[in-house]
Amino acid sequence: MAEKDWKDCVKNLKGVVLDMCGVLYDSGEGGGIPIPGSVEAVKRIKASDLQLRFCTNETQATREKFVAKLQRMGFDISVSEVFSPAPAAMAILKERNLRPHLLVHDDVLPEFNNIKKTNPNCVVIGDAADKFSYQNMNDAFRVLIELEKPVLFSLGRGRYYKETDGLKLDVGVFMKALEYACDIEAEVVGKPAPMFFQSALTDMGIQPEQALMIGDDLVNDVGGAQNCGMKALQVRTGKYRPSDETHPTVTADGYVNDLAEAVDLILKHRSQ
Amino acid sequence: MAEKDWKDCVKNLKGVVLDMCGVLYDSGEGGGIPIPGSVEAVKRIKASDLQLRFCTNETQATREKFVAKLQRMGFDISVSEVFSPAPAAMAILKERNLRPHLLVHDDVLPEFNNIKKTNPNCVVIGDAADKFSYQNMNDAFRVLIELEKPVLFSLGRGRYYKETDGLKLDVGVFMKALEYACDIEAEVVGKPAPMFFQSALTDMGIQPEQALMIGDDLVNDVGGAQNCGMKALQVRTGKYRPSDETHPTVTADGYVNDLAEAVDLILKHRSQ
Repeated sequence: MAEKDWKDCVKNLKGVVLDMCGVLYDSGEGGGIPIPGSVEAVKRIKASDLQLRFCTNETQATREKFVAKLQRMGFDISVSEVFSPAPAAMAILKERNLRPHLLVHDDVLPEFNNIKKTNPNCVVIGDAADKFSYQNMNDAFRVLIELEKPVLFSLGRGRYYKETDGLKLDVGVFMKALEYACDIEAEVVGKPAPMFFQSALTDMGIQPEQALMIGDDLVNDVGGAQNCGMKALQVRTGKYRPSDETHPTVTADGYVNDLAEAVDLILKHRSQ
Repeated sequence: MAEKDWKDCVKNLKGVVLDMCGVLYDSGEGGGIPIPGSVEAVKRIKASDLQLRFCTNETQATREKFVAKLQRMGFDISVSEVFSPAPAAMAILKERNLRPHLLVHDDVLPEFNNIKKTNPNCVVIGDAADKFSYQNMNDAFRVLIELEKPVLFSLGRGRYYKETDGLKLDVGVFMKALEYACDIEAEVVGKPAPMFFQSALTDMGIQPEQALMIGDDLVNDVGGAQNCGMKALQVRTGKYRPSDETHPTVTADGYVNDLAEAVDLILKHRSQ
């Protein structure tokens, strides 16, 4: 039933939005490895009449370094096609005249070069990984608790992700920790915030119902895109778990084994 | 009105339960310092016909070492009078045949000497302070996520506490982090769990309405004791904040400046 739905909409499709980690590649030591068939699948979308953008919650590198890594894996991707939380957060900080205390990965720090950080009046956390020490968490907490109205931005709200050596806690876990410590609610920049998907749609100049999201994260990719009005598929790669297909609140418009199969089905149904 | 309530109950009082940090002393480098008048106040309760027990969520030391520290500060306290989460957790682990993965302060580890820890089937977290590294949080997460039904015990659920050099994140913050990561709810051992207060009452052989709790933490000391059926006072020392007196859900039966004033009022009203 759901499966029928998404294939029906394929004929009116004008653009595809792809999650990256877990869809294009599995991350891990040395940068990670492409998921079989995904390099070719990206090429096939680009060779079609469909537009293509990438939405990632990756905050362990600047967009430039991140895209360069994907290019080395063989992907045909350019920086302007990639939407990631750090540049989106910078736009918000500048618009609201905020001075951030940063608890983010060292490699994403250059994204925040052009903003004042002295006498901070908000906290921004990203996937800081090993930098999520007790000391650094306590420092971020002390900045927040001293503010009359604490403002916390979280670059994503993921629970965990998979690297080649196992599962790793994601930024959402530390967001929850600081939310509880200060009795506040964080503002999420990145997936699943509808604004984040919308910025990719605006860039393509298309409406949500003309776009399809493909991701491995049921809540953040699929649920987030659906909340924005898009259809969304879940791939059975990356952090996919069989229990996702019976999730109590989020149901994908379709489940496919991997990106290669998704692109196969999309292009086949468009040519019929 | 509320003030009248607690003084009315003083005549029927048979026992007093005291929180320790923030009521007896302020913690910090070198162990901390007694709050003025508190050493004498403990002596005065002991010299009266009231029973006395101590309920602490302290999990940075064994009870023995913790009590020795208080004794060095001049307090008349013995180990058997002190209820703390680690021994309470040990009793639960043994009763339920559980093998814990521990993320606790090194100094409290000896409390868990006599239990198997290989092939763990639950996680216990305490106020581990600097041991709350990303690596250790990730290790605890991986144990939980591998279990068919993850069991997480948290030795308290405090947000933060005050040391002489500033506010420090407490165990509850890291409990929330792991709860979110695994989509589970932790079992709290220690305050504010009613069972924990009840164990002190059972030890004194008295009913909740015959006991008065005195603490500096509105939610965990006052609210917890009230949920157990006791009356409870908040002292304006330790982590007390003026906004506590207009808290939306918890109202103390009385507010006093410090333990010395509380004991003054109790003994005065009993002699009338």
